[in-house]
Amino acid sequence: MPTPDTNAFQHAFDAATTTSLDQDGVARGRIHDGWDIGGNANGGYLLALAADGLRRIAGRPDPVTITAHYLSPGVPGDAEIVGSVVKSGKRFATVSGALASNGRTVIQVLGTFGELGAGDPHGVHVVHGAPPSLPPLEQCRARVGNPNVPIPMMDKLDIRLHPDHVKYMTGEARTGRAEMAGWFSFADGRPIDTLSLLLIADAFPPAVFNLDIPPGWVPTVELTVHVRATPAPGPVSCVFRSRFVHSGMMEEDGEVWDSRGTLVALSRQLALLPR
Amino acid sequence: MPTPDTNAFQHAFDAATTTSLDQDGVARGRIHDGWDIGGNANGGYLLALAADGLRRIAGRPDPVTITAHYLSPGVPGDAEIVGSVVKSGKRFATVSGALASNGRTVIQVLGTFGELGAGDPHGVHVVHGAPPSLPPLEQCRARVGNPNVPIPMMDKLDIRLHPDHVKYMTGEARTGRAEMAGWFSFADGRPIDTLSLLLIADAFPPAVFNLDIPPGWVPTVELTVHVRATPAPGPVSCVFRSRFVHSGMMEEDGEVWDSRGTLVALSRQLALLPR
Repeated sequence: MPTPDTNAFQHAFDAATTTSLDQDGVARGRIHDGWDIGGNANGGYLLALAADGLRRIAGRPDPVTITAHYLSPGVPGDAEIVGSVVKSGKRFATVSGALASNGRTVIQVLGTFGELGAGDPHGVHVVHGAPPSLPPLEQCRARVGNPNVPIPMMDKLDIRLHPDHVKYMTGEARTGRAEMAGWFSFADGRPIDTLSLLLIADAFPPAVFNLDIPPGWVPTVELTVHVRATPAPGPVSCVFRSRFVHSGMMEEDGEVWDSRGTLVALSRQLALLPR
Repeated sequence: MPTPDTNAFQHAFDAATTTSLDQDGVARGRIHDGWDIGGNANGGYLLALAADGLRRIAGRPDPVTITAHYLSPGVPGDAEIVGSVVKSGKRFATVSGALASNGRTVIQVLGTFGELGAGDPHGVHVVHGAPPSLPPLEQCRARVGNPNVPIPMMDKLDIRLHPDHVKYMTGEARTGRAEMAGWFSFADGRPIDTLSLLLIADAFPPAVFNLDIPPGWVPTVELTVHVRATPAPGPVSCVFRSRFVHSGMMEEDGEVWDSRGTLVALSRQLALLPR
């Protein structure tokens, strides 16, 4: 089966992440141009591309918990997602696999897939937390790159950041807290599904940009996303925080909330500080 | 090379987790009796056993970030840890592997290993957080099982819980917040190293035991631990919290702090609620 004709897709994210499962059990797709930050394909985009392949291998539609370790930069070109189902149960299937391109493993992935609903309102429900407190979308500020680090990916995403969290872009005094909150939609109106939550988990500027430390590239070592429910229609509100920046490393924890106020994804990554 | 003579070890944890790397590249060890809760080997113990094998395969001493997906219960018996190094770089090596026993995959694991120091006091250091506020060790209460669910593992561990967090054991009114904090040491005085932090990440009672919901078995789907530094001598203080209990699932987030006040590990697991 050839790689799908990407012109056939209505939305950019589908064109860039849809794979086809060949007879040999390998899922084939492409790392598309234009999903990068300064030339390297975004980590959330790579995870979504790999997960599309792995969910076909798993035979289950939704990533429930998925972890990627980032091994080499993703550059545009054909990609192969190889995976093996290590357990297929009634509710979940677990797959170990990798996304490779240009002969190199880009990310190694371990994921459990299943079929998620819109959230269970009838079962046990104890939530200590709430969506981030954000001004209306119109009062938030678009994420933009700069001449040194362009962000081509932002043509396709509509990320509106809390006005207090964009001072790293404007040169004003930063908050001194590693927190980055805002709204996320696709620029072309694509609905947000469970696959795209993996992109969203790594699409915001690093929360540490709001600390008074020298900015720099913060490479992701590992990213884990728990998907808890299928998002309701509409933009999602997101918040990312780093509480423990020390010993050359940091975590970044993310929450993604849908328009009904349901927490639909939790993310955590381990990233390196500039040395 | 045969499995090491476990009588040769001074400490129970080393006897129960040390593997030997055979000529064929497989690490062999044993799921030891007595590290279970109600008959199933503890998830943190299984992760530590697997990580001992994988770090030998990686050739690096410390787990930096490691994720396990739990596929079948661990019961006492010989165990094989098979892994392949997917990248070996200057600083880190990444290994994908699994722990199998009795012909079944018990956990599938993805880990990045390296060599950690005692924490870097000179680099960027921005910590928004602190060790849990705990009474002195003598005023905390030992974790104990009950006649229905014995916890043989607790012979080897010295876990002292915050007095407010043990009411699930005594039948008093619970706090209604999913938080469980306390001190951890080994009963036989074994020093806490980076490998044992993986055990500690899953050795406390579930934080949801302090909610007003029916207690029950909360099976772990996935557990990820970030190890940030080598712990200083002495007990560690730990806190585990579940903030989002809904849709049949929950996360449990853990922090482990050493006696110098350095955050040495962050953990997160995805677990299922009783249905």
